[in-house]
Amino acid sequence: MAVYTDVPDEELAAFVAEYDLGAVTAFKGIAEGVENSNFLLRTERGSFILTLYEKRVRAEDLPFFLGLMEHLAARGFSCPTPVKGRDGAALRQLCGRPAAIVTFLDGLWPRRIQPSHCAGVGDALARLHLAGDGFGRRRPNDLSVAGWRRLLDAAAPRAHEVRARLADELLAEFAHLERAWPTDLPQGVIHADLFPDNVFFQGERLTGVIDFYFACDDALAYDVAICLNAWCFEADGSFNVTKARALLTRYEAVRPLSQAEYAALPVLARGSALRFLLTRLYDWLNHPPGAFVKPKDPLEYLHKLRFHQGVRDVGSYGLG
Amino acid sequence: MAVYTDVPDEELAAFVAEYDLGAVTAFKGIAEGVENSNFLLRTERGSFILTLYEKRVRAEDLPFFLGLMEHLAARGFSCPTPVKGRDGAALRQLCGRPAAIVTFLDGLWPRRIQPSHCAGVGDALARLHLAGDGFGRRRPNDLSVAGWRRLLDAAAPRAHEVRARLADELLAEFAHLERAWPTDLPQGVIHADLFPDNVFFQGERLTGVIDFYFACDDALAYDVAICLNAWCFEADGSFNVTKARALLTRYEAVRPLSQAEYAALPVLARGSALRFLLTRLYDWLNHPPGAFVKPKDPLEYLHKLRFHQGVRDVGSYGLG
Repeated sequence: MAVYTDVPDEELAAFVAEYDLGAVTAFKGIAEGVENSNFLLRTERGSFILTLYEKRVRAEDLPFFLGLMEHLAARGFSCPTPVKGRDGAALRQLCGRPAAIVTFLDGLWPRRIQPSHCAGVGDALARLHLAGDGFGRRRPNDLSVAGWRRLLDAAAPRAHEVRARLADELLAEFAHLERAWPTDLPQGVIHADLFPDNVFFQGERLTGVIDFYFACDDALAYDVAICLNAWCFEADGSFNVTKARALLTRYEAVRPLSQAEYAALPVLARGSALRFLLTRLYDWLNHPPGAFVKPKDPLEYLHKLRFHQGVRDVGSYGLG
Repeated sequence: MAVYTDVPDEELAAFVAEYDLGAVTAFKGIAEGVENSNFLLRTERGSFILTLYEKRVRAEDLPFFLGLMEHLAARGFSCPTPVKGRDGAALRQLCGRPAAIVTFLDGLWPRRIQPSHCAGVGDALARLHLAGDGFGRRRPNDLSVAGWRRLLDAAAPRAHEVRARLADELLAEFAHLERAWPTDLPQGVIHADLFPDNVFFQGERLTGVIDFYFACDDALAYDVAICLNAWCFEADGSFNVTKARALLTRYEAVRPLSQAEYAALPVLARGSALRFLLTRLYDWLNHPPGAFVKPKDPLEYLHKLRFHQGVRDVGSYGLG
């Protein structure tokens, strides 16, 4: 839950006056979103989200993120669209921070994942991958192999505080992934953080995708592997093959996976599990006492990693 | 900032289905409100606030709070109105907690207080006091003199952790107030927590008042004294007589104060300062490490208390 920066009256009024949105009629901090300060902004023209980008987002990446949302929306993919001021700029400054207004997306994120949600996510992810084609900006994935090494170096000395011999296990996995990581898979723009709280539904209908602040260029199948981890495990740690099959089948109906992508899914899923394990471990070891945001349990992803270590082929993910 | 309880999909759908509100189109946790979990709820019928009452609110008080909002709204006072389900009930259960839906109130609370805001608050407070007349339920103020004694007993042994000799100063003030506290002033329903974040404006126009969860029966002039403390001090601790005059003048234009109420204002303001000082001190000493909500500085109210100790008559508050 996050509002790190509050916005004084005059600053808000002056900021909104740069747009063609009319007067502000309501303004409320939103308790969701971990990295930035988000506000529901209602004006005479409708409902919007105002985001102030806090220090974990690099300002130089913002044109990529906002440009991507605009590119995807223009191609019919349902996501928040940056609203431009009268001067044509979507990215401006508010309270000393980069800030932007985006359109409000109806729907709510699912708290209890059903196979129908996974089907919707598979479909939306494939459409996102196709819609991303032709986007002119580039952003390398700084949370791929080289980024894992940095996180591992930072977290390994204190990893035993979370679990005995955790560092050894992570170092061995990293060594394996560094050797086995595929580099010749189809590339494109990936969301890279498509967790349930970033996907909105009304009933079973997917209404859109939010939070593109980890988006980058990488193997498209890596995004699929992230979703297998984020959507297909149960709270008790078990892997739900029905959900995985729903996700993969609907993805493939829009964008078929190549044989190389099929074959790589288990190692991509291991890499994805290690990536979230390492960022959660780092946050767990380094969150300030009294922080607003309670860090997530890194060990959830250790269990996911171990599951994928035991996978020999995509049959384990529900594909024949 | 507060969402203590999240609401799973099926529970939300089943809850909203008890109302005549159509399907849910959006649902977002709100970062404001300290005591309860609040959500923006949009349905096919409009925007609402869904509140889950957490343990600091006593369930047996909720019919008073919700009934008061309904009573005030029916008399033309702008505040959230409880929405009733098809069975006629506004108060129900959700996720094991008492819960209610109220109407969404446009406007935003002022971050930088101007004299015009104080004028609006004076007017609205007086109209609230008149509109409360005839409300059938009663709720004693459990944060009046007897409540201060309980808080003082609980906080005094550790008050030195906040400031040396603070307990002595608070005990002396309490002894004075216990003797001097007026009991024969005009009584009625008071808001008792009319801080800036509970009053919404659009520009200079006050659009409504929220958060009636401290409302109770007490001296109406005590509510005025609470507002003097909440609205008329600057961040540097100085008392702004222009703001106080605006607040009192506009209050009096709707509900004139009696001579006894005038004379009592300084002691009521001291009592109000002690009340917020004690609850903040208690929260400061007892907040769990890592709590979502950062406790407010109790010493802000020590400075306010000392100001009112030096006041001899309402001339200091800008009245002639």
